[in-house]
Amino acid sequence: MTATKPAARIPALTGAMLIGAQDVHGEHGEVRGVDPRTGQALEPAYGLGGTPEVERATRLAQQAFPVYRATTPEARAAFLDSAAGNIEALGDVLVGRVVAESGIPEARVRGELARTTNQLRLFAATVRAGDWLGARLDTPDPTRAPLPKPDLRQRKIPLGPVAVFAASNFPLAFSVAGGDTASALAAGAPVVVKAHSSHPGTSELVGRAVRAAVAEHGLPEGTFSLLFGAGRELGTALVQDPRIAAVGFTGSRSGGLALVEAAARRAVPIPVYAEMSSVNPVVLLPGALAEKGVALGAEYIASVTTGAGQLCTSPGLVFAVDADAAATDSFLAAATAAVRQAPAAAMLTAGIARAYREGVDRLSARPGVTAAAEGGTDESIDACGRVGLYVTDGATFLADESLRDEIFGATSLVVRVRDLDQLREILDGLEGQLTATVHAAESDHPAAATLLPTLELLAGRVLFGGWPTGVEVGHAVVHGGPFPATSAPATTSVGTRAIERFLRPVSYQNVPDALLPSELRADNPLGIRRRVDGEPGRI
Amino acid sequence: MTATKPAARIPALTGAMLIGAQDVHGEHGEVRGVDPRTGQALEPAYGLGGTPEVERATRLAQQAFPVYRATTPEARAAFLDSAAGNIEALGDVLVGRVVAESGIPEARVRGELARTTNQLRLFAATVRAGDWLGARLDTPDPTRAPLPKPDLRQRKIPLGPVAVFAASNFPLAFSVAGGDTASALAAGAPVVVKAHSSHPGTSELVGRAVRAAVAEHGLPEGTFSLLFGAGRELGTALVQDPRIAAVGFTGSRSGGLALVEAAARRAVPIPVYAEMSSVNPVVLLPGALAEKGVALGAEYIASVTTGAGQLCTSPGLVFAVDADAAATDSFLAAATAAVRQAPAAAMLTAGIARAYREGVDRLSARPGVTAAAEGGTDESIDACGRVGLYVTDGATFLADESLRDEIFGATSLVVRVRDLDQLREILDGLEGQLTATVHAAESDHPAAATLLPTLELLAGRVLFGGWPTGVEVGHAVVHGGPFPATSAPATTSVGTRAIERFLRPVSYQNVPDALLPSELRADNPLGIRRRVDGEPGRI
Repeated sequence: MTATKPAARIPALTGAMLIGAQDVHGEHGEVRGVDPRTGQALEPAYGLGGTPEVERATRLAQQAFPVYRATTPEARAAFLDSAAGNIEALGDVLVGRVVAESGIPEARVRGELARTTNQLRLFAATVRAGDWLGARLDTPDPTRAPLPKPDLRQRKIPLGPVAVFAASNFPLAFSVAGGDTASALAAGAPVVVKAHSSHPGTSELVGRAVRAAVAEHGLPEGTFSLLFGAGRELGTALVQDPRIAAVGFTGSRSGGLALVEAAARRAVPIPVYAEMSSVNPVVLLPGALAEKGVALGAEYIASVTTGAGQLCTSPGLVFAVDADAAATDSFLAAATAAVRQAPAAAMLTAGIARAYREGVDRLSARPGVTAAAEGGTDESIDACGRVGLYVTDGATFLADESLRDEIFGATSLVVRVRDLDQLREILDGLEGQLTATVHAAESDHPAAATLLPTLELLAGRVLFGGWPTGVEVGHAVVHGGPFPATSAPATTSVGTRAIERFLRPVSYQNVPDALLPSELRADNPLGIRRRVDGEPGRI
Repeated sequence: MTATKPAARIPALTGAMLIGAQDVHGEHGEVRGVDPRTGQALEPAYGLGGTPEVERATRLAQQAFPVYRATTPEARAAFLDSAAGNIEALGDVLVGRVVAESGIPEARVRGELARTTNQLRLFAATVRAGDWLGARLDTPDPTRAPLPKPDLRQRKIPLGPVAVFAASNFPLAFSVAGGDTASALAAGAPVVVKAHSSHPGTSELVGRAVRAAVAEHGLPEGTFSLLFGAGRELGTALVQDPRIAAVGFTGSRSGGLALVEAAARRAVPIPVYAEMSSVNPVVLLPGALAEKGVALGAEYIASVTTGAGQLCTSPGLVFAVDADAAATDSFLAAATAAVRQAPAAAMLTAGIARAYREGVDRLSARPGVTAAAEGGTDESIDACGRVGLYVTDGATFLADESLRDEIFGATSLVVRVRDLDQLREILDGLEGQLTATVHAAESDHPAAATLLPTLELLAGRVLFGGWPTGVEVGHAVVHGGPFPATSAPATTSVGTRAIERFLRPVSYQNVPDALLPSELRADNPLGIRRRVDGEPGRI
């Protein structure tokens, strides 16, 4: 990486939690970042919080809520822009720390940093545009018989303070100031983040950048807090805290479901938006295999090995419709060659690498599953992940439910599927997914057309060609999908629709103009788009 | 009621469930409608279904789903219009049966009938307009570096077959073809209704009208089914059936929470949209009491006694800010006089009348609670409900949590509140509500302005003046609110937004135009409004 001297304004790491404006050193044990390439523990140690720190943070968030939610769209957007700018200003210091704590190559980290700041700015623009307010006005009719028609106006308000659980695999984009935090802050909700223990230094740097923006804009300190905690104790306390109104989470299925259960047990249950588990099936139709099987093989492994396979959208299952065995063989030969050339990579943590090896061992031991190729190893890497490619057939896949399980890492399974009927049977048996992809040549279009309705019921994002890794942050993206891909299939955790998760509509009946929230007043002082009697675009 | 001879096309009641196109006589016991005015059982007997009938109905719904969800907006809207027309054509036969099974006065039943058919037509218009599809197009950029920007398009699709639980208190508008059914069908979801056992004849009549529309439009028979079942067995089986994708419910808190729990226990959890419990607090500020206390007293009791108090939005708690004791006294005197003149009314069922009397007995036995007045009684009415008015003070209310409980029926509690500080303490301790109302004279506006942020966090609909009973079906209404008013505070069960409960967004990446769903194609053949790169209104 580029060796640039950190600017003076970049704070030194302290190992503290950020609870409102205070630095708080937790006393419930400690954790350090570990360089997964070397296994070396990094300075400083981070003190872990417990229930008292959860309460302190959520109390501040509760106090901040009435003030923060009443900010104008412009004020809120300016705050988000400042947060983006402050994170950007961390520059090489931040990039270096992410690389050290995650083993993610520098180029990818720089891309993720840009994505993170762009995402904050996209939400700033979204807040300014005001469509998220969902403003609706129904014209009254005092003369209507038998009952006058009331003046009804509707807007959306934030649910309340939001708890965000940072993910391990995107130390920036799905972490302290990632999509969940950005969309919750955009909605007008104070945020309490539980940092991921695998990148505490990254979390502190980004947390301080957000906190600085809170201070610059004169917002209540409780608008943002950052906690560290081990195991599930602090997280459970956070979800069960009565001041928390919603939860954003990206991580494992077991972790997500534990939070869903904890939220359901509350006196007042709250929504948990958990993005969990997905194997991201890819269908290769016969024409595509025949036309470009070799190219597909190489592209496939490039997607599998991206991020050492630790992406939510990594293609874990490929269904090759085996109409022409030679074409499938060519695809597999190309994929096999690519795997053999794939170097070993550092995984995010030693624990993830261990779980990965166990998953691969389980897969390779299944009857009817053949190892096609393995990538290189590198004993100098501590949390080493070796690329793997396995092959089976449709009948074996249908008979063995364990083959549908996600292996978090760069191993993927190719299933040679007899025909479209067997493919359909297989797809009908899959769980909900973040993505589903089909590769089709022109000659495959009739078959693809019959598959698309199945794929759209299976996943939140349907791809035609290409590979599922890489999630575009925009207006039309869905990063979500049926259970267990997420706990809330009607939502997305990426893209501008993510703000909707933290809002609810309120209707105002016959409220005098001067007392209405400004977005609903007759003169529309915010100049936002409003729906009048069901018709959009009118004032 | 008007004695009109039923037209020939009106079917005779058979006592059957309607499972797709089949009439099925249940063999798990039977139930009859009962006239709550006389206690007399009505013909015919309705055979109750069990798990086999649930499975039969949900299998048909599952088969219908791919065909029904693929209908064009116009075809689906025409079907909803026909359902409305068929229900309307039942005319006096339907009105007479509702009156007989519910004891609801004829004028109210006619109003509810108009509301029900208008609601179906409103959803037909909503489906035609197409905004519910949430179509979004993000323009691709193949030249972008380092990675090309993909072509992403988004639309909403229905979740799958929906189970609807009919309510007791609106035999038409929240029942077989009520808001849940109308919005689910509008979303493209087949519907399996569990009828409410208190009005089986009404349910059969309406069910046959909907089924006739299914047949007229050549839709798959499983688009609509109607089941009868006692207790919670059939309902639990319905919610836990793997083919059901979402649930709409209006009823008691215990009933709703049982369904929420059953849904959470599924292998694949599904959303339950339960509208449950609300006491609908009304705040009377000092200026309003001084200016029009007498009128408010009369209006209050008119609202309390509407529908024999059996409306979700019945005002069960009134907080009179006691700045001028004489003004509060005038309000109470007027309310007391109105109660004394209020006749007894038939409640919906003998069971509801019994639960009501028990609730009133519990309330009247609480220390510090005084009976202000009782309405008339009528021993000739079987399920008789007597109007009741009780009074307490703020300190007593704060000390006794049981006073916050809903009593389903025409009894309401006035709380004399010391001042605005005590009012705020009281409001902060209330559970989530469907509605919250404030009465304020001009002089009260500063106080009202400080209360509105509290009220909007408390309820789904905030009223200024007026009384909460009467829910306008339109675009800007919210019939929902924080738990326990509903299990899903971000939704509404009334109004055009209700359709959103049964939809989820799907994103399509680089799908060729010919294979895209028509709402996302380049030439926009449906002519719907679409959002392009975040900007609405462009094609």
